[in-house]
Amino acid sequence: MKLTSLAVFGTAIAVAALTAGSVVLADSGAVSPIYGVRLPEGYRTWQLIAPAQEAAPLDELRAVLGNDRAIKAYQASTLPFPDGTVLVKLAWKHVQSPEFEPASIPGAATTVQVMVKDSKKYASTGGWGFGRFINGKPADEAQHQTCFACHQARVQNHDFVFTRFAP
Amino acid sequence: MKLTSLAVFGTAIAVAALTAGSVVLADSGAVSPIYGVRLPEGYRTWQLIAPAQEAAPLDELRAVLGNDRAIKAYQASTLPFPDGTVLVKLAWKHVQSPEFEPASIPGAATTVQVMVKDSKKYASTGGWGFGRFINGKPADEAQHQTCFACHQARVQNHDFVFTRFAP
Repeated sequence: MKLTSLAVFGTAIAVAALTAGSVVLADSGAVSPIYGVRLPEGYRTWQLIAPAQEAAPLDELRAVLGNDRAIKAYQASTLPFPDGTVLVKLAWKHVQSPEFEPASIPGAATTVQVMVKDSKKYASTGGWGFGRFINGKPADEAQHQTCFACHQARVQNHDFVFTRFAP
Repeated sequence: MKLTSLAVFGTAIAVAALTAGSVVLADSGAVSPIYGVRLPEGYRTWQLIAPAQEAAPLDELRAVLGNDRAIKAYQASTLPFPDGTVLVKLAWKHVQSPEFEPASIPGAATTVQVMVKDSKKYASTGGWGFGRFINGKPADEAQHQTCFACHQARVQNHDFVFTRFAP
């Protein structure tokens, strides 16, 4: 199969997923269970909102990036975030720098986690759809059942979003 | 003085600084000693290269951003980095998240550090000019005297740059 055929095939899956809304397309392997969230195209080029660190047992360095709508909302302190806001959290194992003793740096990538704001589609979960991906594949349904409960318990007063903008 | 007058005044300083090359303009307070490096316009919107953490006594979270030329060089594994590459490291105090026990997040901003590649202008320091800024003001000459020696001792084999791209 040529690359162009693969691209067409991929587009067909994407169109099918969009048409199906939040229905899980088990065959595509590309959307999260429960929410039908996918990895947004080009997210790695998005602007930085803030880094973070997570202690053991995960031991991770993280960075949250946002699409233009997210960045504008942070800059204007807009709450709740508007529909179309997308946040992506990248995570890597947190390893010692081999070149500078006081520093630790990203090791292997672990998860990429996505939050998509759509107040109608995700009305029952604060307007947010969640997706957790490992090597580009969505994690299982059990993992996705934990997302909203934690965000609801801890950061309901910040529209269910933990991360603040680091100036 | 009106805002427009201030803007014209600021532009005049910037033009003077560009004209003067690497000469330190003590009155402007905007360029680093030794190197004459300034905070690049719009750097906070640049793409993320990688986060990092620095242990005590600094206790910082950090994120290195790069201009387009830097990102392209990382993507193509181009070494040495081409002239025009600019890297900016943002740093914040590393504080406990009040909302999620295992996480730590950015606190107050501390320094912003800049590396500018110009192989002719900075030939004696591996092609790199350095700038360290605190609240937008360059740190003193003594601090800038330490930059290149450390980069030369530790990462000469990576064109004097510590940070690798975090995928």
